Amino acid sequence: MTVAVDERFVGDLPRTDAERAAASIPADATVLVSGFGSVGYPKAVPLALAADERERALTVVSGGSVGEEIDVTLVEAGAIARRYPFQATPQARAAINDRTIAFSDRNVSTVGDDVQYGRLATPDVAVVEAVAVGEDWLIPSTSIGQTPAFVEAAPALIVEVNRTQPLALQAVHDVYRPEAPPARQPIPLTEPDERIGDAKIRFDPEKLTAVVETSRPDSTYSFREPTDDDRALAAQFGAFLADELRRNPAFEQSVPLQFGVGSIGNALMGELVELEFDDREVIYFGEVIQDGLLDMLDAGALRCASATTLALTEEGQRRFFDGIDRYADDVVLRPTDVSNDAGLINRFGVVGVNSAIEVDIYGHANSTNVRGSRMINGIGGSGDFNRNALVSVCALPSTLDDGSLSRIVPMTFHVDHTEHDLDVVVTEQGVADLRGCSPVERAERIIDECAHPSVRPRLREYLDAASASGGHIPHDLQRAVDWLDQ
Amino acid sequence: MTVAVDERFVGDLPRTDAERAAASIPADATVLVSGFGSVGYPKAVPLALAADERERALTVVSGGSVGEEIDVTLVEAGAIARRYPFQATPQARAAINDRTIAFSDRNVSTVGDDVQYGRLATPDVAVVEAVAVGEDWLIPSTSIGQTPAFVEAAPALIVEVNRTQPLALQAVHDVYRPEAPPARQPIPLTEPDERIGDAKIRFDPEKLTAVVETSRPDSTYSFREPTDDDRALAAQFGAFLADELRRNPAFEQSVPLQFGVGSIGNALMGELVELEFDDREVIYFGEVIQDGLLDMLDAGALRCASATTLALTEEGQRRFFDGIDRYADDVVLRPTDVSNDAGLINRFGVVGVNSAIEVDIYGHANSTNVRGSRMINGIGGSGDFNRNALVSVCALPSTLDDGSLSRIVPMTFHVDHTEHDLDVVVTEQGVADLRGCSPVERAERIIDECAHPSVRPRLREYLDAASASGGHIPHDLQRAVDWLDQ
Repeated sequence: MTVAVDERFVGDLPRTDAERAAASIPADATVLVSGFGSVGYPKAVPLALAADERERALTVVSGGSVGEEIDVTLVEAGAIARRYPFQATPQARAAINDRTIAFSDRNVSTVGDDVQYGRLATPDVAVVEAVAVGEDWLIPSTSIGQTPAFVEAAPALIVEVNRTQPLALQAVHDVYRPEAPPARQPIPLTEPDERIGDAKIRFDPEKLTAVVETSRPDSTYSFREPTDDDRALAAQFGAFLADELRRNPAFEQSVPLQFGVGSIGNALMGELVELEFDDREVIYFGEVIQDGLLDMLDAGALRCASATTLALTEEGQRRFFDGIDRYADDVVLRPTDVSNDAGLINRFGVVGVNSAIEVDIYGHANSTNVRGSRMINGIGGSGDFNRNALVSVCALPSTLDDGSLSRIVPMTFHVDHTEHDLDVVVTEQGVADLRGCSPVERAERIIDECAHPSVRPRLREYLDAASASGGHIPHDLQRAVDWLDQ
Repeated sequence: MTVAVDERFVGDLPRTDAERAAASIPADATVLVSGFGSVGYPKAVPLALAADERERALTVVSGGSVGEEIDVTLVEAGAIARRYPFQATPQARAAINDRTIAFSDRNVSTVGDDVQYGRLATPDVAVVEAVAVGEDWLIPSTSIGQTPAFVEAAPALIVEVNRTQPLALQAVHDVYRPEAPPARQPIPLTEPDERIGDAKIRFDPEKLTAVVETSRPDSTYSFREPTDDDRALAAQFGAFLADELRRNPAFEQSVPLQFGVGSIGNALMGELVELEFDDREVIYFGEVIQDGLLDMLDAGALRCASATTLALTEEGQRRFFDGIDRYADDVVLRPTDVSNDAGLINRFGVVGVNSAIEVDIYGHANSTNVRGSRMINGIGGSGDFNRNALVSVCALPSTLDDGSLSRIVPMTFHVDHTEHDLDVVVTEQGVADLRGCSPVERAERIIDECAHPSVRPRLREYLDAASASGGHIPHDLQRAVDWLDQ
């Protein structure tokens, strides 16, 4: 592996401390931050923003989830008035549900475009973590996210160079930012592991207002150990996939997979190590590299992995950093507008596997708002993959953890993924292949194959009662509402 | 204009009559038919299928809507058991809502892939209308739809050559079928009016089992005259667009527009003739050419139009056929997997304008199922554009025609377009720009700007009552259900 850049600070830079950099940010600024999958986000400047005495009402826009320095400390300091497009901390969630933070939940693929061309927000400054910086370039750290678009969009740029992030991370980056529409060219990626850019994000040197040094590590993900249900679900998915590979001509030579972030995604990746792929190449084209993918790479079960972030646990991050020379041959990080690009997901024919809070008997999924109202994290990239994958799989346990509540419901009162997009539902109970099915046929399959056996009679009763009144998608709305309080 | 093919029948062809061709189709066959926007579909063979005495349970898959020979006559003959992905006749609608036809409502962009790689259906035969046919090619008529994918996917092919469709239609066709994933290359279209294919759809000559001749015209669309509300809505949209053009850097040089099929779309196109675009080029990159676009072309208000169908009225079709040499310079028809391609809609930065049955105060749109249950037509291409457009506009009258029912509701009980996708709502009352807004801010804008004044107090009351219980998207589900019966 060639490391082209071997210094953290190159050239004449406006170096300062985090406090001074933070003081330069107006109280009501729109701040675009690096970060995705809870890593690669700025840490020192957000902490300095939280620590000073000033009243603030910031708009904070990230690529995806960021760590506790922003979505805990800065939230608790009351400094965030608006937040886009995703978060994953109890503190940010509480503020969003109290509506003290105005949150807009967006598909992560297009947040860069939303900022540059979509009037989501008018940026004042980008605050970006890097492993190295020069006068007109920076090299991102553990995630790329929407940093290239953010750096382009913002009139001012603050760079945090983080010494705990290895300089060698430059070897995994492939930075390519699509041009502005309407002259945007096709993204020239024809293989998931191809490189079409370089490790550096370039910027107008006039923008660089501050360079700050830090040694604070990412607040990495932690996942629970797989439960019996997770393992059963993974085995059901494995059986479905084996069957699909045999039948689908698109997967004759290779299969590109994507798994949503989380404990279930991690468990699914674990299952794949066991699966018989015959001579097919297995490829990961998704948004997050999780620990399970490292297992697959180590086992030789995966040819390559393309994503936008190293969403690893603390242990996974150590493992990756220690083996970075080896992993960099097979792992590529891209901007989210490439990793999650609709056109690329379509062209590669991805099998997308994402979870949800609940799915209804007709195949609509709610992945964001409990009872239609209370935000969990946000849609993240699940919509990008469910919508554009060749095969879209919704994988979820049939019940909530304690088994008392069914995740298969008559109607979801918030819909993130429509009946037009979901192809297959998998729970620990079984697999419902919805392709080509009418709504009632879908309901029969989902109830019979995916619901927990203890709930099937009640779901059947709903379907029968609703069907009595006719209609393409039979519903009894009063019963659907009453279901929530049973 | 060069007409390369000047004969209807070229070479040694298996010519026969419609009855014999129909008799060759098994009773439970899966039949892929050409057609989109109610034109360019086969007519003689479906009528022959309906006329003979045989019991049939066909699966009929089209690109989009087809005319009465299929979705009226064949439906009334009880010959259709399954139907994908869209229909627009009262008879098909009734059978779908009675569930005597099993219907699956799909995004039209991917129906070709759904058939070839998605296990939507296993095709037995494609029945395709053409203006001319050879031993291994055909030239489509008034729509392209998913015909290239269908011809590729089906093991047998019946071609209907329709003498009422001008041979000169070959001049508007640009046939390009993306390769199979994972080796699918980027679609090399960089300008909406560029040609990247040719007029012919090629096929394996072994597949061609019958060639039938007909002179039966399309059952074309008819639109109501624009109402006062349509005109008011169009004026509101025009004002929004003029403002957006000034503010959005993506539209400095040109603006690519798309309008959904229907009377509202037609009225909106009428409005654009009046609009001041300064020196910007106006481009249409959508799925349907409607009469309003011909007005724009004739007025010099439009540089070019790319679509998958000539969804014209009878009069519009006559006008187009009479002026085809002139129109062919500026009009291109493409397969739906190109016209509605997610990657192209994103790259061109389209302003997509589509209607809906109803929209809720938080920006979710229902465009298919009344009360969550009763199918109208299907999602069509509205999801392709709403999801991938740079600016997604939902344009609808604030009330149903007689004014007694509000189309702005507390909650839609079917969601086709999520809060993550819709950017702007326009009614005859005004414009709600939802970008960057939290759900409650969206509700305030939609109620204040878009709802009919007579309904605003009740919607406000809903929002206030729901807000009392907290949550990111405040809802009171019981009130939302009760709203339906008020």
